[in-house]
Amino acid sequence: MMETRERVTPRGGQLPPAPVEPGRLLHRGKVKAVYEVPGHPELRLIDFSDEATAFDGAKRAVIGGKGEANAAISVAFFRAVERAGVPTHFLRLESPVRMLVRAVEIIPLEVVVRNRVAGSLAKRLGLEEGTALRRPVLELFYKSDPLHDPWVNAHHAEALGWATGEELAELERLAFEANRAMRQLALRAGLELIDFKLEFGRPVGPAGTPSDGGAGPRLLLADEISPDTCRFWEVGSGERMDKDRFRRDLGRVEETYAEVRRRIEEAARWLDSPSSST
Amino acid sequence: MMETRERVTPRGGQLPPAPVEPGRLLHRGKVKAVYEVPGHPELRLIDFSDEATAFDGAKRAVIGGKGEANAAISVAFFRAVERAGVPTHFLRLESPVRMLVRAVEIIPLEVVVRNRVAGSLAKRLGLEEGTALRRPVLELFYKSDPLHDPWVNAHHAEALGWATGEELAELERLAFEANRAMRQLALRAGLELIDFKLEFGRPVGPAGTPSDGGAGPRLLLADEISPDTCRFWEVGSGERMDKDRFRRDLGRVEETYAEVRRRIEEAARWLDSPSSST
Repeated sequence: MMETRERVTPRGGQLPPAPVEPGRLLHRGKVKAVYEVPGHPELRLIDFSDEATAFDGAKRAVIGGKGEANAAISVAFFRAVERAGVPTHFLRLESPVRMLVRAVEIIPLEVVVRNRVAGSLAKRLGLEEGTALRRPVLELFYKSDPLHDPWVNAHHAEALGWATGEELAELERLAFEANRAMRQLALRAGLELIDFKLEFGRPVGPAGTPSDGGAGPRLLLADEISPDTCRFWEVGSGERMDKDRFRRDLGRVEETYAEVRRRIEEAARWLDSPSSST
Repeated sequence: MMETRERVTPRGGQLPPAPVEPGRLLHRGKVKAVYEVPGHPELRLIDFSDEATAFDGAKRAVIGGKGEANAAISVAFFRAVERAGVPTHFLRLESPVRMLVRAVEIIPLEVVVRNRVAGSLAKRLGLEEGTALRRPVLELFYKSDPLHDPWVNAHHAEALGWATGEELAELERLAFEANRAMRQLALRAGLELIDFKLEFGRPVGPAGTPSDGGAGPRLLLADEISPDTCRFWEVGSGERMDKDRFRRDLGRVEETYAEVRRRIEEAARWLDSPSSST
């Protein structure tokens, strides 16, 4: 844990003592709110809510306990990918629904990694959900609410100046590396990781500048890793254990978020334990 | 010209004397028909028609002289890209609307290269037509009429077995190389090459096998290169000199195809002439 903190905090920087009080509200998303940390331009606080939206905001609900479950599940996955060499924005939990993170300048791309065909890919290519892929597939979408997150590829991102070619190569490499670590943790929890969405950002420096400059990671995995952003199918039964229960009215929505949290935290403890490496 | 023939004909193969008579109809597309060549499984005949379709076949018309213009324009572009090191399926014209080509197993991808924002990209990203791109952009679409040619990327193509990673890297390299040669020829004709669609195939061997094996190019640029598959804007005026005149009812459709042919053939003669290399 200390190793993780030292890697992502600004050089020589010290985390303020907990609990950190939120400053100005920077951004209220559909599900999370992001706050400044007074006196620390390199830090942010993220509050996870119980709100849920689907289909571009057309479907809305409150899922009791989701904020707390998603914060805890995200912590477990962030630690798992950090161990695999993927730096993240995560620093510590301030409360069960409030996360202290490194401030990042978000690259406006949704990075989707798929291990099996599901969701929009099944529709688009006329393939059955669950169809195997010879290798994981990566898709990029331009983050834009008015444009409804249109598909793009690395050529668009570079040609339109959203990221450099070097950043895009790094982002793809980190996304596939995260996939490996996430699959392993999910599998230990009896869940198959079907697909997921990631976001990446450039760390914002201690003076609020867009970059640390020189040392430190160039890109941090940001946002969250939870049943809102991943598809998990229960190994064996194929039961949906993610936001599709809400999207598709499959029932047992609150129970599923709680169950995924229980399983992922148990699997993470097992992987953390000294015996797991023998 | 002889150099080109020797490169793409099967090793030791000789072209049959002209004119070659068509055999069995293999495929009737929206605009072109493809025939076998009796006794030559490694060859095909392609007939260019005057038919035009747009918007997934919803709009149809006959454009007088289009078949002949597109065959001639394609020949000029095929020769230009061959000179730049991009092997094509073109062998010779049998008549003003009939082309003798190397048989290929088509890779089911439409390869779109864009030098400026136009058409579907302008709509999708909310950008004005004509917006400059820092570098050319490449897009892939899965060739499927029932699915309406959905967007994909190289990851999908590899994971679903449509092409190998090696083929996809080669295809991208050849597409950007073709772009450079095509832009140069178009510019000499007073036309800016805005974007275009290419198709690639694996050469079919003399015994009708899916590959030549060993020697010879692995991929051939196939299909056509014409105002049906390219956007040309007149340098200076910005006048549309391509199929958009038909798609968008801009008028002077037949005249435009004839004018592009005249200009491209003149530019090709100039580039072919010894003085052009001094």
